[in-house]
Amino acid sequence: MIFTKEEFKAKVEEIQSQSWYRNPIGFGLARVDRGQKNPEKILQATFPVVNWEENYGSAAVFLNALKEAGAAVDTTKTELVCEVSDAFVESCIETFRPYIPEAKGEEHKNVQVLSQLASLPLSSGLNADNFKVVFIFEDAVVESVEAAYLKLYALSSGKAKLRSLNLNGIFGALHNCAWTGSTPIELDWLRENEIALKLSNKYPEITMVDKFPRFLSHVIPADNTRILETSKVRFGAQLAAGTTVMPGAAYINFNAGTEGVVMVEGRISSSAVVGAGSDVGGGASILGVLSGTDGVPVSIGENTLLGANSCTGTAIGDGCILDAGVTILPGTKITLSEKAVAAIQEINPDKEIKPLMRGMDFLGVNGVHFRQNSVNGQIIAMRSTREIKLNADLH
Amino acid sequence: MIFTKEEFKAKVEEIQSQSWYRNPIGFGLARVDRGQKNPEKILQATFPVVNWEENYGSAAVFLNALKEAGAAVDTTKTELVCEVSDAFVESCIETFRPYIPEAKGEEHKNVQVLSQLASLPLSSGLNADNFKVVFIFEDAVVESVEAAYLKLYALSSGKAKLRSLNLNGIFGALHNCAWTGSTPIELDWLRENEIALKLSNKYPEITMVDKFPRFLSHVIPADNTRILETSKVRFGAQLAAGTTVMPGAAYINFNAGTEGVVMVEGRISSSAVVGAGSDVGGGASILGVLSGTDGVPVSIGENTLLGANSCTGTAIGDGCILDAGVTILPGTKITLSEKAVAAIQEINPDKEIKPLMRGMDFLGVNGVHFRQNSVNGQIIAMRSTREIKLNADLH
Amino acid sequence: MIFTKEEFKAKVEEIQSQSWYRNPIGFGLARVDRGQKNPEKILQATFPVVNWEENYGSAAVFLNALKEAGAAVDTTKTELVCEVSDAFVESCIETFRPYIPEAKGEEHKNVQVLSQLASLPLSSGLNADNFKVVFIFEDAVVESVEAAYLKLYALSSGKAKLRSLNLNGIFGALHNCAWTGSTPIELDWLRENEIALKLSNKYPEITMVDKFPRFLSHVIPADNTRILETSKVRFGAQLAAGTTVMPGAAYINFNAGTEGVVMVEGRISSSAVVGAGSDVGGGASILGVLSGTDGVPVSIGENTLLGANSCTGTAIGDGCILDAGVTILPGTKITLSEKAVAAIQEINPDKEIKPLMRGMDFLGVNGVHFRQNSVNGQIIAMRSTREIKLNADLH
Repeated sequence: MIFTKEEFKAKVEEIQSQSWYRNPIGFGLARVDRGQKNPEKILQATFPVVNWEENYGSAAVFLNALKEAGAAVDTTKTELVCEVSDAFVESCIETFRPYIPEAKGEEHKNVQVLSQLASLPLSSGLNADNFKVVFIFEDAVVESVEAAYLKLYALSSGKAKLRSLNLNGIFGALHNCAWTGSTPIELDWLRENEIALKLSNKYPEITMVDKFPRFLSHVIPADNTRILETSKVRFGAQLAAGTTVMPGAAYINFNAGTEGVVMVEGRISSSAVVGAGSDVGGGASILGVLSGTDGVPVSIGENTLLGANSCTGTAIGDGCILDAGVTILPGTKITLSEKAVAAIQEINPDKEIKPLMRGMDFLGVNGVHFRQNSVNGQIIAMRSTREIKLNADLH
Repeated sequence: MIFTKEEFKAKVEEIQSQSWYRNPIGFGLARVDRGQKNPEKILQATFPVVNWEENYGSAAVFLNALKEAGAAVDTTKTELVCEVSDAFVESCIETFRPYIPEAKGEEHKNVQVLSQLASLPLSSGLNADNFKVVFIFEDAVVESVEAAYLKLYALSSGKAKLRSLNLNGIFGALHNCAWTGSTPIELDWLRENEIALKLSNKYPEITMVDKFPRFLSHVIPADNTRILETSKVRFGAQLAAGTTVMPGAAYINFNAGTEGVVMVEGRISSSAVVGAGSDVGGGASILGVLSGTDGVPVSIGENTLLGANSCTGTAIGDGCILDAGVTILPGTKITLSEKAVAAIQEINPDKEIKPLMRGMDFLGVNGVHFRQNSVNGQIIAMRSTREIKLNADLH
Repeated sequence: MIFTKEEFKAKVEEIQSQSWYRNPIGFGLARVDRGQKNPEKILQATFPVVNWEENYGSAAVFLNALKEAGAAVDTTKTELVCEVSDAFVESCIETFRPYIPEAKGEEHKNVQVLSQLASLPLSSGLNADNFKVVFIFEDAVVESVEAAYLKLYALSSGKAKLRSLNLNGIFGALHNCAWTGSTPIELDWLRENEIALKLSNKYPEITMVDKFPRFLSHVIPADNTRILETSKVRFGAQLAAGTTVMPGAAYINFNAGTEGVVMVEGRISSSAVVGAGSDVGGGASILGVLSGTDGVPVSIGENTLLGANSCTGTAIGDGCILDAGVTILPGTKITLSEKAVAAIQEINPDKEIKPLMRGMDFLGVNGVHFRQNSVNGQIIAMRSTREIKLNADLH
């Protein structure tokens, strides 16, 4: 029996020293939604707390409790998903005992989850078979719905960096569902019950059909973050504190997002990232790796303005302006005056600035104002008026 | 009394041979939502099953049952809408008897509707006067709300081809309502009850104000179709299996849609149709007949890419690319190099390809890449790199 | 005691003649939503009726009743917010007595509010401390949430002109909340209860995170107005009867809107106003004072067409056309042919029309068609074909 924190730590060390043991990259306990027609189909996994490269003590307790409860614990695989049993919960609670009194607010969130779970009747009713413990031991191709959700949580909670995770296989793992609010419904179940539901006026209000849920169904944003319409941010996106997402033409896909205070009125496609202080204007499009970007994920620098209805298919540096309505693709030919070459060269001493450049040549170039000359239609680059945090190393 | 399928068929033939009888183009049984203030106003009609140029045996049973139940059945009009009575239901059930045991899953859906209906108490409570049988005998100007919905169902279920139906009169037939989810509310009722509802904290959550409902309130899409936000597809749109509608700037209006696997991140205006394998980029606009198209509905061919924030006011062929940010209207002058003329002519032997063409001249021309030259602002056409399924007849 | 309308009027005059009394610019009675964690935080104020420069008799009754009920009534401040007590309600009802029988439908809405309130148990349960009387005596910087809502109501109900109110301080006054439909939730409360809510499957469906509610949560639009998706119109926007807001890329921010029948498929930024008969095409952007407009709020004239994906950063007159995809910023150089100068001059006799003008020079110029020449990329202006209601004074 564990009564003190010292005993707890000793227990954890003892578990971690066992040959079968392996620290997970990420883990957590989830409530799952099952198919209405095929209950073995997991439609969604909701994690109250996610652990990502942290809290290895709790991981050890969870894995040990699973083993004690008789679950098949194979840490040599890339993922592990186990049912939560009463025995597992009891074992965890016994080990966590010294932390239970102080598990409140921001303290010991995994212990809070277990305490809460211990108060629910797990073996019957709505809760039966609806809780899972999920581990990712290796950042490999996604296999289970539960691991897919754990990775999306890691991204959306900001615990894993955008573009840092292997998301291959995620479209294959997730099921396409009809959603009524945050609840997924199997399309087949809906089809089978369409007549009865419609005649009895009980047909659910379907708010979307997709494999991914929405960001706000799983994540609570920072106090100064605003998302004016939930459909505008897919789960798996990452929004730094202070980001505002407007409801016009905005959209932030999974594995895309912002790194600081950013105003988003346009599209940030999957794999695109926007730096702090930047502004994605109304209807502006930052292209994803699958369309018009030559396969290179697009990064937008800090304090850069993408004008309304502009389009970016290549990286843009810090302190830049892309005029409203202007499109810069990797192959776009951009003309610079002698004066522009000099002014841009001055603040980008390590880059080669020339009178005719392609969109892709501006990778890492700061302080550029991209415009279309309205007299002759030429796409030109000038020195922008936006402030740039100069890199001290260069001066 | 009908006991066998042979007797059923004989009965149907007997009905169909009567002088008053006429096969409907479409028919179905609907649950209706009535005005909260003016119950005679039909706000919405929900069909669990629609029949369009099919199932004439069920039509005969329905029409005969209405006559037997004493309803005024006039098949010389373009539409017929009758209340569902207990007598009607009983008569249908008696005639459908041999099919009732096998009416499950995809089999005999009209019989399923009647069986289900027979189990509901029709004469009182929530169901009273809320069911209608609806027939369209001629594709004329829309007169009733019920017939309007039946036509929209025919389009959205894919049973009628886009642009094939007469939808004149539909805006006059439908009532503008406030909607809370899938439930329509009379605006006048809301006004009359605003004070009481607001003070008692029972004011409904209004999700939209429109004459048309949303596609997902009535139609279950195919397993591989995705609609990431319900407001993005109006009822009356048609989405081929595999279509994805993103939540940024996308919108598909009624009588518009897709003919195959299509990615939709832009606007498909009413009357516009997009071919299989094509991609409507983020914020791309396909104009409708009422704005900038010279009144000709726009068709986009197969395997064609409309770039982000592009705009199309005229037909585009197969295997084309419209660059991000480029606008092609019917009158847009487009310049082709000698090489481009030759390359495009080669794959379009029956078209006249010239060094200077208008947007409208590209009707039926395949394999074109529309760009704006970023050095001189000229709108140009080149041979695209997209694959075209060549028409064997032309080679 | 007040028994007749004459006595009522005498009473009002008597109140108004007292030295402490001051007519408010606006006033009303609101139900408030309080913080789930911090009940002293007002998250939202819902007014069944707003008064703006009108109904001073009711204002006098309200202020007098507050004084009689012992509230601190200081009319020298810019705003006054008081709790509604039983004593206040009783006093109002006594004074309003002669109007109570006829307070129905459109008549005596303030009296209706009081009657309704008198029927609710105010001192306990859900209603306790949830009603406020709110006055604005001076159009100064916004201080309270309640006054912020009253101003937004004045704008959205059409009682105050767009841009006419001082909205400074409104972002500071309003709290950023998670919203489930029309109900605001404190983000902190959500954080504190995340584990329990998620494990018990009671986590609320969050539809947005913002400081402002949506227009349709507070305002009932005219019968011929359509808003196809509630997120597209922020509270504080103003929509003239007959306005249609489509769900693609449209958005109307607070303190922005329309002055007549307008089709809105694009963005109307805060402070922008669109005239009757105009059309904001799919994805068109009308810039706000904070981005690309030189700080001057943009007005779009009457019967003007902004094409799909166009962008406007400066005022556009009546009967103009901005072609799809064209951007006009204040500094955009626009070229006019000799013929165009003459034709535009003819209908704008008091303006200076020249062969080369800037976007900002077109302020108040009517009948202009802005295009990009597709052969040479030049932005040009021609005489448009749209009808202009000519100003009789000029001819």
